[in-house]
This record gives sequence, C-alpha cells and structure tokens, in this order.
Amino acid sequence: MRFFSDNAAPVHPKIMQAIADANHIDTAYDGDRWSTQLDARFGELFGCEVAVLWVATGTAANCLALTSLCQPHQGIICNREAHIEVDECGAPGFYTGGAKLMLVGGDGAKVAPGTVNELLGTIRDDVHQVQAAALSITNATEYGLVYSPEEVSALSALCRQRGLGLHMDGARFANAVASVERHPADITVRAGVDVLSFGFAKNGGMGAEALVYFDPALADAARYRRKRAGHLQSKGRFLAAQLLAMLEGDLWLENARAANSAAQIIATAAAERLLYPVQANEIFIRLTAAEAATLRASGFDFYDWGDGAARLVTSWHHAEADVAPLARAIDSL
Amino acid sequence: MRFFSDNAAPVHPKIMQAIADANHIDTAYDGDRWSTQLDARFGELFGCEVAVLWVATGTAANCLALTSLCQPHQGIICNREAHIEVDECGAPGFYTGGAKLMLVGGDGAKVAPGTVNELLGTIRDDVHQVQAAALSITNATEYGLVYSPEEVSALSALCRQRGLGLHMDGARFANAVASVERHPADITVRAGVDVLSFGFAKNGGMGAEALVYFDPALADAARYRRKRAGHLQSKGRFLAAQLLAMLEGDLWLENARAANSAAQIIATAAAERLLYPVQANEIFIRLTAAEAATLRASGFDFYDWGDGAARLVTSWHHAEADVAPLARAIDSL
Amino acid sequence: MRFFSDNAAPVHPKIMQAIADANHIDTAYDGDRWSTQLDARFGELFGCEVAVLWVATGTAANCLALTSLCQPHQGIICNREAHIEVDECGAPGFYTGGAKLMLVGGDGAKVAPGTVNELLGTIRDDVHQVQAAALSITNATEYGLVYSPEEVSALSALCRQRGLGLHMDGARFANAVASVERHPADITVRAGVDVLSFGFAKNGGMGAEALVYFDPALADAARYRRKRAGHLQSKGRFLAAQLLAMLEGDLWLENARAANSAAQIIATAAAERLLYPVQANEIFIRLTAAEAATLRASGFDFYDWGDGAARLVTSWHHAEADVAPLARAIDSL
Amino acid sequence: MRFFSDNAAPVHPKIMQAIADANHIDTAYDGDRWSTQLDARFGELFGCEVAVLWVATGTAANCLALTSLCQPHQGIICNREAHIEVDECGAPGFYTGGAKLMLVGGDGAKVAPGTVNELLGTIRDDVHQVQAAALSITNATEYGLVYSPEEVSALSALCRQRGLGLHMDGARFANAVASVERHPADITVRAGVDVLSFGFAKNGGMGAEALVYFDPALADAARYRRKRAGHLQSKGRFLAAQLLAMLEGDLWLENARAANSAAQIIATAAAERLLYPVQANEIFIRLTAAEAATLRASGFDFYDWGDGAARLVTSWHHAEADVAPLARAIDSL
Repeated sequence: MRFFSDNAAPVHPKIMQAIADANHIDTAYDGDRWSTQLDARFGELFGCEVAVLWVATGTAANCLALTSLCQPHQGIICNREAHIEVDECGAPGFYTGGAKLMLVGGDGAKVAPGTVNELLGTIRDDVHQVQAAALSITNATEYGLVYSPEEVSALSALCRQRGLGLHMDGARFANAVASVERHPADITVRAGVDVLSFGFAKNGGMGAEALVYFDPALADAARYRRKRAGHLQSKGRFLAAQLLAMLEGDLWLENARAANSAAQIIATAAAERLLYPVQANEIFIRLTAAEAATLRASGFDFYDWGDGAARLVTSWHHAEADVAPLARAIDSL
Repeated sequence: MRFFSDNAAPVHPKIMQAIADANHIDTAYDGDRWSTQLDARFGELFGCEVAVLWVATGTAANCLALTSLCQPHQGIICNREAHIEVDECGAPGFYTGGAKLMLVGGDGAKVAPGTVNELLGTIRDDVHQVQAAALSITNATEYGLVYSPEEVSALSALCRQRGLGLHMDGARFANAVASVERHPADITVRAGVDVLSFGFAKNGGMGAEALVYFDPALADAARYRRKRAGHLQSKGRFLAAQLLAMLEGDLWLENARAANSAAQIIATAAAERLLYPVQANEIFIRLTAAEAATLRASGFDFYDWGDGAARLVTSWHHAEADVAPLARAIDSL
Repeated sequence: MRFFSDNAAPVHPKIMQAIADANHIDTAYDGDRWSTQLDARFGELFGCEVAVLWVATGTAANCLALTSLCQPHQGIICNREAHIEVDECGAPGFYTGGAKLMLVGGDGAKVAPGTVNELLGTIRDDVHQVQAAALSITNATEYGLVYSPEEVSALSALCRQRGLGLHMDGARFANAVASVERHPADITVRAGVDVLSFGFAKNGGMGAEALVYFDPALADAARYRRKRAGHLQSKGRFLAAQLLAMLEGDLWLENARAANSAAQIIATAAAERLLYPVQANEIFIRLTAAEAATLRASGFDFYDWGDGAARLVTSWHHAEADVAPLARAIDSL
Repeated sequence: MRFFSDNAAPVHPKIMQAIADANHIDTAYDGDRWSTQLDARFGELFGCEVAVLWVATGTAANCLALTSLCQPHQGIICNREAHIEVDECGAPGFYTGGAKLMLVGGDGAKVAPGTVNELLGTIRDDVHQVQAAALSITNATEYGLVYSPEEVSALSALCRQRGLGLHMDGARFANAVASVERHPADITVRAGVDVLSFGFAKNGGMGAEALVYFDPALADAARYRRKRAGHLQSKGRFLAAQLLAMLEGDLWLENARAANSAAQIIATAAAERLLYPVQANEIFIRLTAAEAATLRASGFDFYDWGDGAARLVTSWHHAEADVAPLARAIDSL
C-alpha cells in the first residue's frame, strides 16, 4: 500500500464518469456549457460572487493568483517551507516577472502575524529594498496543519493594515475544511482571503484546480495571463466537468473526510512518534532507518523525511481496511 | 453540424479508453509507467533518439520549444499570421523573457527561404537590433497548407547557414503527414527540424501534446521550464496514456486521414470558392453574408473569416455522411 | 565635419560646468540638493505638477515609461520604425516582461489616429490576442517630423476613448518644441500625454534624460523599477545637475534652435533631394553612391540610409559656419 | 565630516579632468577611442585576455554578470546579506528573468565552501527544485571583510566541481586588493573567478564600473543585454574615460589605499568596539544611542546599524587629518 502522495492516488470514479459524460462537441476553450457554470456554482458554495478559472495544476493556480496581487518589482511573503518557495522550481519568479519571495519561519510551515510583522519591520521603506505586496499561506500547510478561521482573520487584518493582498494555497483546502468543520467561506472570503487556489488533483481529481477570486475584478487580467501561460486548454470542458462533479453532492468534502479519517487512524497508532499534530491527511513521524525498512518489507511505501523521520500521506481512496494494517505495523514496531 | 474548430470535436473513444485504463495508483508527475515509455515510443516512430515531454496545450509546447532555441535578448522569425504571433496572447514573449517575434509574409502563412533571407538582410549586425536565433514554421499552416520535405529542408539549410534553430509548430502535424504521405521523419528530423510541437488535442486527444526534441540534450532545461510554467501535471500518466494510445496502431494518422478526407469532400464541392488549396483539414472559401446565412439556416456552423469569406475545419469524427450534406449545400448555393 | 548623429556631438560647456560644480559631497542616489529640485523645476516648465526621474539613457526612460502604462500581458502601439521597435534591442520586451509592440505604418514614422484605429479594429476582444494598453509616439520622429499640438490631441482623444495610455518618446523633444514654436506643455500635458521621455543627451547633455510623469502617482512604482533596472546611479547629483543646467535660461531650447537652424540651411540647399520635410534636426536626402563619395571626399561624414539615400543630423554645436560648406557642397553636386 | 557612504564622496580631480578631456566629437555608444581601449588596458592589468563593458552602476554590472552565468530557471548562491539580495530591489530577479537567489549564512557576509556545500546538499536533484548555476561573492564584503586568494580558490574549486559559475561583486574590489596586498589577478582570474564587477563609483569615480569577463566569449551576449537594459550610453566615452583614468598610474589602488588607511585610524581608536575586523574601508562598531548622539553633536555623520551599533565608511578623500578628529572623539567616549 502506497502512502507517498495524494497525487499518486487514482481518480475518483465519479470524476472519471464526469469526464466521460463531457465528451461531446462543444465550444472550445472556456465557452462550453461546463466552464460557463463555474462562477455560479462556486459562488453558491462560498455564498458570494466569485470568478473562477480552471487550471491544470496547483503551481499554475498559485502563480496566476500571485500575479494578481503583486507587481514584478514587489514581494510575496510566505513560509520558508511553502510549496511556492520549495517545490515549484521558481515558478512564482517566472510568472510574476521576478518578484521576490520573502520568507518567514513558523513551525509546521504555518505563518503567524508576529513573524510577518517582524519581517516587515526589517524592510526599509526605500527603493533599494523590495517591498512586500502580498502574503501567501498554505492551508492545510505542507506539514498538514490547518488554520482556524480566527488565525486567517488575524493574518488578513494585518494584510489590510499593511496593504498586502492575501492568497491561500489550497492544494489541500478540502482537507482543511474537513478538519476545521466550518463553512468553506469561514476560512476564506469571510476571513479576508482575496484569492484561493482550490485544489482537486490531490483529492480525487484528474487534472483540474479552481482558481477562485473573491474579488471578481481581479480575474479579468488573470484570464489573459492563463492563456499567455499556455493554460487555456482547448478542451477545457473536461476540466470544468471535473470541478462541477466535485461540487456535486459535496464530493470534495466527502473525499477529504475519508483521507483525514485514514490519517487519524495512523496518527492514533503512531501517537508517540508524531512530529506534528495530524490535522489533515499528512502524517510526519519519527522513524529509524531500521523501522522504515521493516515497514517497507511489509509492503508499505512512503517518503523518508530527512534522517529518522518519514512522511505518510493518505488519500480519498484509503479505506479503513487499507490503513489498519499500517497502523498495526507501526504500533508493533 | 459544427465546422468551427477541430478543438471542438469530441475525444476519440480509444483515447477515452486509454485514460480510463490509466486510472491506477502510480508515481506522480512523469515517473509513471506511461510517461517513461514516451522517449522510446516516439523514438521508434521517428527512427531516431528523441526526448519527449507531454504538455497540455500547443501554446505550452510551442513556447517551451522556443525557450530551447532562443535567449531572451534574441528573436524568432515566423510568419505574420503564425499562431504564436496572432493567437497565443503573447505567450512567446512571456516564456522567452521578452524575445521578439520577427515577422515575414507568405501566402497562406507559409514561410519561404527568400522572405527569411530578406528579413535577415534588414537586421544590422550591431547591439541595437535584436538578432534572430530561431525560425518557427507551422505545419500544416494556419491556412491548412503543408510543407513538402524539400521545402522544410530548404528552410533548415538556411537555418544552419545563419545559425538559427528550427521549430515546427505541429498543432496539425498529423494532418500534414497524412497530406504529404511521407514518413513523419521526412518532414522533421530528416529535414533538419530541431524541435517539434506534435499536436494531438485537435486530432482526437483530450489534452495532451508531445514536445519532441530531436536533440535530446535540449530537453534537459525544458523539463525544468515545464515545471516552472506549471505544466508538470501531478497525474501526468493521463497525458502520457493519451499519447501512447495515439501512437498505438497509428491512430494519430488514421484520425488525420479521416479529417483530411472530409475536407477534400467539401473542397471538391467548393472548388470555385477556395481561397487556398485544401491540403489538410481546413477549408477557406469565399462566401457572401447571404450565402453564409443560408448554410447556417441549414444547420452548418463555421467561422466567418473577415468579409465575404469563411473558415471550415473538419476533424477526425467527420464521416463522409457528415460532410456530404454540407458539400451538397455549398454546391447548391 | 561629422553629421552622423547628435549623440556624437560634444557636451555643451554649460553642462560641463554644471557637472564640475556638482562635485561636492552630498547624499547618494537621488537625495541630493540637485535631484530634489527636479519635480519643482520641471513643474515650472510645464506649468503643472509633475514627477521627474533622471535616467542615463533614452532607452531606459522609454522603457520605464512603458512599464507604467502596460502590464506584461498587454501591448503597446507604435510606428513600425519607432526607436523602441527598431533600435533598442528589444528593451521594451525586457522591461515590460514580454509586452508586445503592435506596429502601425505612417510616413516618416508618424502615427495617425486612422492607423491606430485600423489596428485596434483587427484585435479580437478575446484572451487569445494581446490587447493594447498604450500608444507610444516619437516627437520629433525618427525621420525628423514633428507633431502639432492638434495632432497630439487627436491621438490622445483616441487613447482616452480606447483606454490607452499615451507615451511620448522625446529623445528630440527639444527640437520638436523649437520647431512648432509652442509652449512645451502644448504638445504634452495639455495635449493629453501621460509620460514624456524628455531627452537631453542628443541636445548637448552628457548622459541624463528626464522621465516626466504628468500624473505623479505613476512615478511611485517607476522609482522602484529604476533601481531594479540598475539605473539609480549612486552619484545621481551629476545627472540632476545636467538637467537643471539645461532648464536654466532655457539652454535646452537654445541648443535645439541651433540644431534646427543648421538643419534648415542644409535643407534649403538640398531642397530638391529631400525625402521628408525638414522640421527638426534630421535631413534625409536622395544621394547616389557617387555623390556620397564626393561629399565624403570633401570631409563630410554621415550615414547611408539604404540605397541612394543618406541621413544627416545636425546638433547644437553646428554653427552656420560649420554647415554652410556642406550646404554649398550639396548644392554643387 | 560625513562617513555615511563612499558613494557620497566627491569625484577625484583626475577623473573630473579625464571627463573634461573626453569632451570631443567621437563615435557614439562604445565605438569611441576610449571605449575601444578597455579590453587591452584591463587585459594588461590582469595579465590575461579579458572583455570589458562599462556600465553606470554596480547593480547593472552585477546583474549583467549573473545573466551570463545563470538561466532563468536556475539559481545563484550568495550570502543572505549580499548586496544583490538586500539592496538592489530585486534587480537580479529582473535581469535574469526570475532566477532565484539561494542564501547561505556567513559572518560578515562572507561565503565559505562549507555553507555552500551544505546548501547544495539540501537541493533535491529533481525538476521541482531550482538548481544552482552560479555563486556570487562580494569582495570586500558588505561588512568590509576581504577574501584571501586561497579563500577564493577554495570557492572556485567547489564551483568547478559542482558546475557553478563564479561571480565577484567588486563594488569595493579596489579596497580588497589594497587590503590583501596582492596582484588583482590573484584574487580573481588566477583564483578562478569568471566575471568581476569592478567598482569605481565608490572609489573616486563619477558613474562608471567595469564589468570584466575573464572568459571573453561570455561578453558577447552581455553586450546585447547591456543595450537591452538601457545601459549602453550614447556618450559612452565619458564612462570609458573614467575607467582609463582610474587605471592610469594605478589611481584606483592609490584611492583605495587612502580609504583603507583612514579606516585603520578609526579602527585603532575603536578597537574595543569593533563588530568585525576592519580589513577595507568599512567600520562597524558598538555604539549606544547616547554615544551616537555625542558624535553627531561633534559634527560626525554616519549610519545607525540597528540598535547599539553604527557603520562608518571612509573614502579616498578622507585624509588623516579628516579622520583623526573622529578617532579622538570615539576614543574619548
């Protein structure tokens, strides 16, 4: 059983079906009957007017979002372990035309108002230094931690005060919502988020993410930038259909709950080993090389996370029966 | 019946099947069992060593190709009606970091050695002027014209002489190969092409194109640039599976032949009206507004192409029975 | 006597003196006593509030101006013989992050509302095509033609109507003002220009141009971009001092008048040969290779301008006595 | 007496004279009699073939150098307090098209092989992470520390081994050479440096730095990039003349020695307060707010450097008589 990544998981059958059902002649690009429903359907979900663009990857969603909040000569604050800093091969620099990522610390890749304020305090207000224009947070974080509505609100209050836009990288947004058990608007638009990368690929989708603008006016330029980045797929209906199917009956939430539940089973078994609280679908544990070898010999695969640690990620398709053996194996180490 | 665009066509059932068949857990990004076959399979097709990257769109394929051939301070020669100039929202400027498209004329969007030479003759060899580094041609062109192997060879000979790389935008490469009835290598690697954007989305695919490097060393940087552009999909296996299914039994060629045949039926009926010879799957005809209205009233849809003209595009799924009514309708105008 | 370029001319003695006089310890960058006077002094000249940045070159001035008017995914309309298109090695593409120059014709490199409208008419209002955001005109043009206040106003009216910013490349702005014999505001701020590159290097300066924002708010980002482009010189006082000395007693106008007068002497002698009316300090004449050789044998140097033509440029230091021999020589060809 | 910055210092009289002497008609840009001597004269200085470009600022020199060593998708390693990271408003991101600065620690802004190796060890060799292509060190550093030839050689050996280019930001290169009392080649070309930003503006120049390529082939593209960045001044002879005058009789070294000597006088007086050894012309000392006020009341100006510390910079024009009063004032605090 593989616990490498939620990216490795299969596509949910309902998504496969939605893709099959979309195989009709229709208008190319984003003029089709599926794409043109997105604004309305996501607007219902969030309870407000939104503008939504599909894109194939989280990197594209994040970077298009950042170009909406930041000019090339400005900067974007993020955690030093944020995906945009660590794992996108410099994509933000490419998309923004050389804007600077300005790094703050924070355990488990979380960002707090204090560290942001501290960073801002080190930037001289003169033209020799890059001035920050935006803050980007990941929710759930790269270490599986989740922001409460209050935490997001505190960050957005700071952003308003300092003239920063607020982006949320929600590659695992569904897992975050499932974790806090709150309305998705509570940790986004109601908490002051300007743009959300709402991820589906890690949550049972095939290759479609939703870039959600809570200020629809910001989306106008983004539509050109999407094309210019080669992300306006000619058969966009297949992306839109995935997103609509995910919203249908809250499949996105059902999938995330399954993944989170699976993670909890492992977390319980590994309670003494946890490096971070398990709030979403990622589990980071202390694990010696010998222990890792033992688990692998039993058929469990996962990433080493530096020396003496490992990362396990659960996904929508990990049923209790799938993870129970792993939990037992960890327990008996 | 719609003749707007080959982008509007449905996905071929074999491609849908291949996508369904790829729905297994596997390594994320391009480490899966499908992606890792691409170099070998396309190598067999072209009869030489190649490096192949999947990307979702032709714009991404074209622009990644151009970054391999051109530094930011250099230029790329193309026809003034080339897709990269007219229809990609400035994507080449974005991807290359501001390189300049240098435009030549040429009927039906074709490029000839003479016009390229003429352009090169106008560029002073000093630092005040952008120097050309590459030539990009589209085959079949935006007007459905096809290059013979000899024509490509003549252009590549000029490129070698002048130190230019040669890119082929093959959004409709399959239609070009079907048209010239030659081995695909004859109009690419054997004729001196360096990089090919081999299109499948217009030819029955869903959302996958092959960026084919005939000099595999050029692909190394392109792999980073693909990630950096947000085009490394996490479930890349679904793109790779499309490409493999297209090569299987030469489905790509079968589809292109069907589209080209459908176009010939219309071309024959519209022989007196043709603006360009019909060599692939696009038909440009003289058509008055009244005539256009008549055809539309009969259920045929297509693009107006300026005043008094129209563009019709056939696709893999246009069977003879589908186009015969249109042919008759045109004939009886 | 050399008539290659006004760039080749010496620096005016008053400018040399101003540079010498500025050689004191003072605040670095643009905090010195000279730089901090620029807004006020240029404000007096134009009779309105302005924000002014010194930069060393016209290319830098032009390109910083363009970044103020155009986002990376947009376009800038200009004449196809504009300096920004032909002679800046793609600098606009670099500075703007890949924005597109959209070219219109126009005799003598002038731009007219009709051609701009025609170009705009060809741009589809969809995301596949770059949308224009600005118009850049050169005054005097690259062929020495001058815009009347009415001509500029007509262009700016069109710009307002179409949502375009208006930039004036005034590498030879002084010559244009001297030519129209109007207040400098009449062909700029009062005629609707947003940003002016006010050139001095071709007019007796050493290495300083003024980037003049008629909307001072636009200058805020430009100050960061100037630094980011490496154009914030640490001893900026030497650039500011040049600009102030140029304004002192309207030296800029005196110099331009001298250059224009010298040009008129040649124009009169070459009346039958003129390719364009001589309105500023550039003279384009028909001249056979044999005639060119004759002139050169007599000690006159200038650029060939294609076959059978030549370009002569006069400068502030060409006294009547300097150009009279050339005039006679042309006359006696 | 001001000790803010060596940028605030006046221009050396011999440089002023050289500028005055260059005020002749000559070829524009870099075709004049001064610019065309640069390769040969700097070649003599370094004892090897070099290609040299003048530019007006250190930021431009540094960033053009980096574009020669690094593609847009790659990274440049530097100290986290390096000028290119802290004080150039993101210029490297702009010039390189979004390359990433990869930061290492190091006391006094020095870089050591160990920290570089450690950083390289954290970069996974896959396309998700930016791969380093170059190392940039500052000599003398931003804290006035100097690299020995052996230290540079150790870094270049690592660079060769890891495929990195090596750039030296020599804004205070003259001070470094004066400090180590070695041939300038010993800490550059003979120690494995690829490109040097050789600064003169802080050392008695007006506005000219030399970008020195020890591999002349690398300079070819840089010449286009200089133009494209708006840094090819039309009257480049005034920059070239400054550089030639600096080399004449080793004025650059004489100036640097004067600045370093002045720094030593202060360092001796402030020996108990030094935060870093004083090796060049910068002195960082512990200084309470009250002490700072006392010094300022006595007419000495300088930068506060955070709480309880100050930075003093000496320059070529600080004679012993100028700094002695400051030394006494510090001594008597």
